[in-house]
Amino acid sequence: MESVLQHIEDNVDRSLETLFTLVRQPSVSAQRLGFDRAPHLVAEIFTEHGFDTQILEAPNDGLPSVYGYVPADNEAFHRAQNLAGIDNPSDDPPTLMFYVHYDVQPTDPIELWETDPFEPTRKDDRLYGRGMSDDKGNIAARLAVINAFRDEWGGLPCNIKIFAEGEEESGSPNLPGLILEHADKLGADACIWEGGGRNAQNRPLIYLGLKGVLAVELSVALLKGDAHSSYATVLPSAAWTLINALNSIKDPSDDRILIDGFYDDIRDSTPEEDRALANLPDDSDEWRDTFGNASFVAGLGSEDLPRKHLFMPTANVAGLDAGYQGQGMKTVLPAKATAKMDFRLVPDMRPDDIFAKFRRHLDRNGFENVDLDLISGVHPFRTDMSSKWARMAIETSEETYGKQAVIYPTMAGSGPMYDFGGVLGIPITSAGIDHPTHKIHAPNENITVDDFVLGAKNIARLVQRFAAEWRS
Amino acid sequence: MESVLQHIEDNVDRSLETLFTLVRQPSVSAQRLGFDRAPHLVAEIFTEHGFDTQILEAPNDGLPSVYGYVPADNEAFHRAQNLAGIDNPSDDPPTLMFYVHYDVQPTDPIELWETDPFEPTRKDDRLYGRGMSDDKGNIAARLAVINAFRDEWGGLPCNIKIFAEGEEESGSPNLPGLILEHADKLGADACIWEGGGRNAQNRPLIYLGLKGVLAVELSVALLKGDAHSSYATVLPSAAWTLINALNSIKDPSDDRILIDGFYDDIRDSTPEEDRALANLPDDSDEWRDTFGNASFVAGLGSEDLPRKHLFMPTANVAGLDAGYQGQGMKTVLPAKATAKMDFRLVPDMRPDDIFAKFRRHLDRNGFENVDLDLISGVHPFRTDMSSKWARMAIETSEETYGKQAVIYPTMAGSGPMYDFGGVLGIPITSAGIDHPTHKIHAPNENITVDDFVLGAKNIARLVQRFAAEWRS
Repeated sequence: MESVLQHIEDNVDRSLETLFTLVRQPSVSAQRLGFDRAPHLVAEIFTEHGFDTQILEAPNDGLPSVYGYVPADNEAFHRAQNLAGIDNPSDDPPTLMFYVHYDVQPTDPIELWETDPFEPTRKDDRLYGRGMSDDKGNIAARLAVINAFRDEWGGLPCNIKIFAEGEEESGSPNLPGLILEHADKLGADACIWEGGGRNAQNRPLIYLGLKGVLAVELSVALLKGDAHSSYATVLPSAAWTLINALNSIKDPSDDRILIDGFYDDIRDSTPEEDRALANLPDDSDEWRDTFGNASFVAGLGSEDLPRKHLFMPTANVAGLDAGYQGQGMKTVLPAKATAKMDFRLVPDMRPDDIFAKFRRHLDRNGFENVDLDLISGVHPFRTDMSSKWARMAIETSEETYGKQAVIYPTMAGSGPMYDFGGVLGIPITSAGIDHPTHKIHAPNENITVDDFVLGAKNIARLVQRFAAEWRS
Repeated sequence: MESVLQHIEDNVDRSLETLFTLVRQPSVSAQRLGFDRAPHLVAEIFTEHGFDTQILEAPNDGLPSVYGYVPADNEAFHRAQNLAGIDNPSDDPPTLMFYVHYDVQPTDPIELWETDPFEPTRKDDRLYGRGMSDDKGNIAARLAVINAFRDEWGGLPCNIKIFAEGEEESGSPNLPGLILEHADKLGADACIWEGGGRNAQNRPLIYLGLKGVLAVELSVALLKGDAHSSYATVLPSAAWTLINALNSIKDPSDDRILIDGFYDDIRDSTPEEDRALANLPDDSDEWRDTFGNASFVAGLGSEDLPRKHLFMPTANVAGLDAGYQGQGMKTVLPAKATAKMDFRLVPDMRPDDIFAKFRRHLDRNGFENVDLDLISGVHPFRTDMSSKWARMAIETSEETYGKQAVIYPTMAGSGPMYDFGGVLGIPITSAGIDHPTHKIHAPNENITVDDFVLGAKNIARLVQRFAAEWRS
C-alpha cells in the first residue's frame, strides 16, 4: 500500500492541476452557468483517468450528471486480499460507488471574494476558488487515488463507479428520476459519499447520514404594479402579507416550527447514535469564532447544540425580496414580495409531506393569497452505525489520521444520500478532504494541500480494505 | 387675459421642448444620478426665462436647489388690477412663490418601462419619460406662463419666486436647513405648490395639505458572513429577527399600528374638512382598475376609504432585502437583513417623535439588535380651507376647467409644505398638470398635451387673480 500512498504525495501537483481545470470551469447549477461545457469537461477528465464514461441527461430539462466505470484488475484485486491476509480469497471483486457532484454554489456576494472565484489562486498554504473544496476538490482527490492504483498496481483492486451529479447544489431535483432510469448500472456494494475529512481538532470526521431538504419559494402579488406608498392607507401590501405569513411559521421564543404535524414523522435516535452524539466535541466556540454570533438561537446552551444541530429539522429564510433595495429611499408600495425558504429534514420526514403541511398551514392561517412553489425536495438518510461498511470507514480513518474518529450519525447538511442509500439500498459512508475552515458555499472557498493529500490517502486505504475484506 | 392663454396654446411645442430637455437630463436624487449637470441645466433654463437665478447648495453634502426671482412689471401689475376692476389699485405688487422640484424617482423596475425613461417619447396623445409629470412637467408649465406674460403683457403682474428643490423625492432631508439659511429671500405672500390638476372625472383638483413622512431603514446583522443554511438549527437568523420585528409593528386584522403613542398627536379634522371629505368622489373603482387589487386593506369598504386615505397615517414596507434572490435556490443563512419603511404622518405628528417611539417599540419588544436609521423626515401641513388663498385657487380652477372643483384638505402623499407653510408661514394651494393616469413614481410615467396646456392656463389665471386681488 505504501507505494500507492507515496504516489499520491509525489503526484500532488498533477492532481491539483486537474482540480484547477475543474475550478476554472464555472458550473453554477442555480444559475445554469457553464453547463454548455462543464459536463463534457468532467467526462473528458474521467475518460483520461481510465473510466468508461457517459453523460446522463436529466429529465425535465435538468442539468446532466456524469457517470464512469472502471472494472477491477484481477491482479490488483488479489494483491489487496493478500495484503489483508484473507484466508480464502474471492474471485468476484466487489463494486464501490463514488458519489460526487461537479456543480457549485453561486458566487454571490461576489464583492466579498478576495480573488476571482473561477481562477484558482494560491495564497500561503491555501488554494482559493469556488468548488475548490465542495466538491471539485473531492472529485480530484478520488482521481488521484485512481491514478495511484493504476500506476503502482497496474489497475484497481475493486470495480469502481463514479457518479458526478450536476444539480446537487440546487437540491438534486432530478436525481430520483435519473436514478430510477439508470438503476441497472448504478448498483454497488457500498458507496463513499462526497466530503468528510477532518474536524477543527484535525481528528478524522466520518458521517453516515445527511438531512433532507425542502426548498420552496413563497410569493405574494396583490397589485398589478408597484404603487406610490401614499396608497398604503388603503391598498393591500404584498410585503406585509409575506411578513405576516412568514411570522406565523415559527415561535421565536423556542425556535419551534408551528406548522401542524411538522414533527410527526421524526424517528427516535438509537442508543448508539445517542452515544456518538455525546462523544462529539463541543463546537460552540469554533462556531462563535467562525460566525461571530453573540448567542445561539433561542438562547440554547452548548450542551443542547449537538442534538438540535443534527437531529432536528429547520425552517430557514434564505432570501427576502420586495420593493426598493438601493441607496436612499423610494417610497413605493411593492406589488410583489417573495421569500426563499429551506427546511432541513430528518428521518423519516418526507419533503412532499412537509410541503403539503406547509400549504395547509398557510391556508388555515388566512394566507391563501401566498403562492407556495416547490423548488426541490430531498429525503433524509442515515446508514446504520453498526454496519460493516461504517466500521471499515471508521477504522481506516483512524489509521490514516492517527487519531480517534469523530462519528456523526448524520451531518446537518443535506444531499441525495437517500436516492442511493434508500432507493438502491447501498450502505454509505463519507471520506474526503474537508475541513471546517474551507468556507464552503461562502466567499473565499478554499482548501489546504495537506487536507487534499490526507483525504486522498484515506480514500486509497479504504478502497484497498473494501476490495480485500468485503467478500470475506 | 385671452392673449396670455392663447400664447400658452400657440407655443406649446416650445414649452414641451423645454420639458423634454429637462427629462433628458437624469436627476435621481436617491441615487445622486445626474447632479453634476442637472442643477446647472435648471438654472440655465430659469435664466433664459428671465429669472435672476441662484443655485443654493444644501447642507450635509446634500443636493442643491435652484432659486429664481423675477420682479413684477408695474404696467402688467396695473393691467391685472384693471382687468379685475379693482377700485383703489395698489402700487405694491404681491409676491408669489412656485414650489417645484427638479429631482425624480429612480427608474426601477427598469424592465417594465416600454421606452427609455430619459428619452422623451410620444405615443398617441401621451408623452413618456421619468419626471414628465412629476415634477418637470409642472416646472415647464410654470415657465410657459412666465413666457406668456412676458411676451403678451411685457412682464409679470406680480413678483414671482421659483424654488426648485433637488431632494424632494428623497424626503427633502436638507430642506429645513436650507430654508432657515435663506429665509430672508424665500418669503412670499402665497405659494403655488407643485401638482394638482384634474381628477379621473376631469374635474379640477385642488389640494391644500400634504402628509409628512418618516423614512427609515431597519437592519439586522447577527453573523460575520452568510452561513450554510444547515446551521439554521443553531445560529441566529437576521432574516427571522427582521420578520418578527416587522410583524410586531402592525395588526393585520384592522391595519392598526401598534407602536405605543403612534396616534397620540393626530389633530381632529375640522367640520369644513369633513364636508370636503364627504364631497369627494368615490375613487375605489378607479383604484381597483389602476392597481388590480381584489380588496382593500383590512377589508375596508368604499365608504371608509377617503377618511382612512387622507386623515390616517401609514406604516409601509417599501423594501425587503436578505440573502439570495436569484434564480433557483441558494441554501444560505443570511448574515444580514434590511427593510426600508416609510410612515406617512398627519398633523400634528412629528417625524422625530415617531422615530423615537419606533425605537422604543423595538427595544420594548426584544428587538434591541435591530438597527434603526432615519433616512428622512418631513412634517405634515394643511392650509386653512377657509383662507382667501384657498378660495382664490378653488374659484380659478372652476373657471379654467368649467367644472366643480374637488377639494382635498390634504393629499395622501407627502412633501415639504410644512417648511414653507409652517416655518415661513405662507398659505399654500396646488395648481398643476396632474392626472391619475400619469403613473408618477412608476414605470411609464407620462402626461397628455391637454393636461399640460390646461394646467398652464389655470396657473396663468391664478397668477393674474393673485396679482390683482391680493392687496384689495
